[in-house]
Amino acid sequence: MIEIEARKETVSRTARLDAVFAALADPTRRAIIARLSRSEARVTEVAEPFRMSLNAVSKHIRVLELSGVVKRHRKGRDHILSINTRSLDEVGDWIARMRHYWDERLDAMERLLRELKKGHKLGPKDRKHGSR
Amino acid sequence: MIEIEARKETVSRTARLDAVFAALADPTRRAIIARLSRSEARVTEVAEPFRMSLNAVSKHIRVLELSGVVKRHRKGRDHILSINTRSLDEVGDWIARMRHYWDERLDAMERLLRELKKGHKLGPKDRKHGSR
Repeated sequence: MIEIEARKETVSRTARLDAVFAALADPTRRAIIARLSRSEARVTEVAEPFRMSLNAVSKHIRVLELSGVVKRHRKGRDHILSINTRSLDEVGDWIARMRHYWDERLDAMERLLRELKKGHKLGPKDRKHGSR
Repeated sequence: MIEIEARKETVSRTARLDAVFAALADPTRRAIIARLSRSEARVTEVAEPFRMSLNAVSKHIRVLELSGVVKRHRKGRDHILSINTRSLDEVGDWIARMRHYWDERLDAMERLLRELKKGHKLGPKDRKHGSR
């Protein structure tokens, strides 16, 4: 039962990562995220700087909402958009994990290099074997 | 001339971000990146853990190569795949920039809250105006 729950969680996290990365794969949507990262805003305010119809921008906003990156709430007549920082944290964490893997590799390579250098300078271990 | 060059650079960076984010929007491709982040590997080694044909995995690898996330070089008969850390750094930096925006917002809100609290305790400025 716990395993099924854990699997469900993994599946939904995977689906979330898919959706968020796909949502980020567009310059207009990234610009909307950058705008909303500075402050929440009305739909019309978000659309204003773009050279495209409100309808076209609305479609991009819809993709961002479906991916969970952008939230919407009503304030009287206005629809206010804001960023859901948690979803971006999740993709940021994924990238950080990959970086961690190759940082570890670089560290391992550095250690190996240091060992090789030590060997080259004939450390105690090498002298025992009496090379050169 | 410099402006045109700068614009070209921006356009190609935008296109790169589009391609890398799109490449990351798939669980198989993310698993391949995770594998290659640990060490470079032959195409067959990369394909091995997946329950799909070598052909299907090769298509995903092709998407990763076109996006610039994965590089390929030959070692005799083998095709060796490795990760291009720079392209992932670029998307990681984009996300870090967004985080920076909203961290600044949170800091600003914190400062405002502190000011409001001070005002509530009737600091010198408030006393001068003699409110309450």
